[in-house]
Amino acid sequence: MEMESYVVVHNIAKRHNVGTLARSATAFGVSELIVVGRRDFNAFGSHGSTSHLAFRHFHSLLEARSFLKEKGCDICGVEITDDAVAVDQHPFKRSTAFLVGNEGTGLSAKECEICDFFVYIPQYGSGTASLNVTVAASIVLHHFAVWAGFSERIRDGNKFVVAEKPAKQVKRNFCAETVDAIIEERKSRKQNASEFFDGDGNAQSSSNLLEGLFSDDQ
Amino acid sequence: MEMESYVVVHNIAKRHNVGTLARSATAFGVSELIVVGRRDFNAFGSHGSTSHLAFRHFHSLLEARSFLKEKGCDICGVEITDDAVAVDQHPFKRSTAFLVGNEGTGLSAKECEICDFFVYIPQYGSGTASLNVTVAASIVLHHFAVWAGFSERIRDGNKFVVAEKPAKQVKRNFCAETVDAIIEERKSRKQNASEFFDGDGNAQSSSNLLEGLFSDDQ
Repeated sequence: MEMESYVVVHNIAKRHNVGTLARSATAFGVSELIVVGRRDFNAFGSHGSTSHLAFRHFHSLLEARSFLKEKGCDICGVEITDDAVAVDQHPFKRSTAFLVGNEGTGLSAKECEICDFFVYIPQYGSGTASLNVTVAASIVLHHFAVWAGFSERIRDGNKFVVAEKPAKQVKRNFCAETVDAIIEERKSRKQNASEFFDGDGNAQSSSNLLEGLFSDDQ
Repeated sequence: MEMESYVVVHNIAKRHNVGTLARSATAFGVSELIVVGRRDFNAFGSHGSTSHLAFRHFHSLLEARSFLKEKGCDICGVEITDDAVAVDQHPFKRSTAFLVGNEGTGLSAKECEICDFFVYIPQYGSGTASLNVTVAASIVLHHFAVWAGFSERIRDGNKFVVAEKPAKQVKRNFCAETVDAIIEERKSRKQNASEFFDGDGNAQSSSNLLEGLFSDDQ
């Protein structure tokens, strides 16, 4: 059976981290980046990698869990819990989706509930206790790729060979939007319109949000 | 013999990365962060971790190499060279200093010259070819800590236990500044004054630069 990895982010706090996370996810052969909850982030920091990475959006953690369970995935929380296993022990069994916490706060109780098991990144010395969320996710994704035996990308000189990007006119990425989901979102937008105004008080249309999700800003 | 790890950064381009790098270095038990060349960065992104991490500054790569060789260190470049070994193979022998490249450009020929060997981080899939420099450094430092068998920090609930910070009046960190080095720097500052003006054209004093190096901005 072919192994796959997924990354799940839920209401991520710092916008710019999503782009850097997308870059790492691409580098480590992640199949899809799954965004749960708010999705009005841009892809700053991704250096164009989003063109190679599939995104998927769900409104709730339970919807995301159902989707991943249908795929036969374990859901692994990256968090320092009592039963968490050090990631370098490779406690993996099958395709795995990694749920990473918001910067600084770690995973909430609700987030922990959808996880099948937990890994943590051992720390040493006496200093900081919180790694940058993209750093933590990257270390975990790297270990999973090593464990799963993903095919290594071919190197050419001092660069990895990058596949040609799809032509601009071709639909890039995809988003699992159903008509129901769009209706649901419009409803919640009406209920809480203030969320959809930017700092200058300008309304952002739904298409702007989607555009932002897939933007290639560097 | 007790193993130690060091991080060497040379003319690092993106200021905010130094702070995040310092956070990771602290988490992975790095002994010192060695800054070569320009040092007018601040520690943004470090979340206070710089108080636990020792910094050292050298004007040239060769000075840094001499210092590290006296310590009995290997110098390992993090770069995709023909003879680079995948980092998960743990090609380490003794205390090691890791030289990480500027974001995007990798290591220069001059930087490669001071290295004893190279490691690279395997990539998978067909997307981006450049990992964020802090992500790359963090993966390497994590592997070295696992290989060296550093003592793992004690966990308490879902946090690592962090040592108490030194009181504010105590001199934090240190910097290997000799009188000669300061005279040398003042000389080079006169020769190339433009480097020491910020974006608004304001002159920055030497003490500001040093302050910036050790700042705790979050």
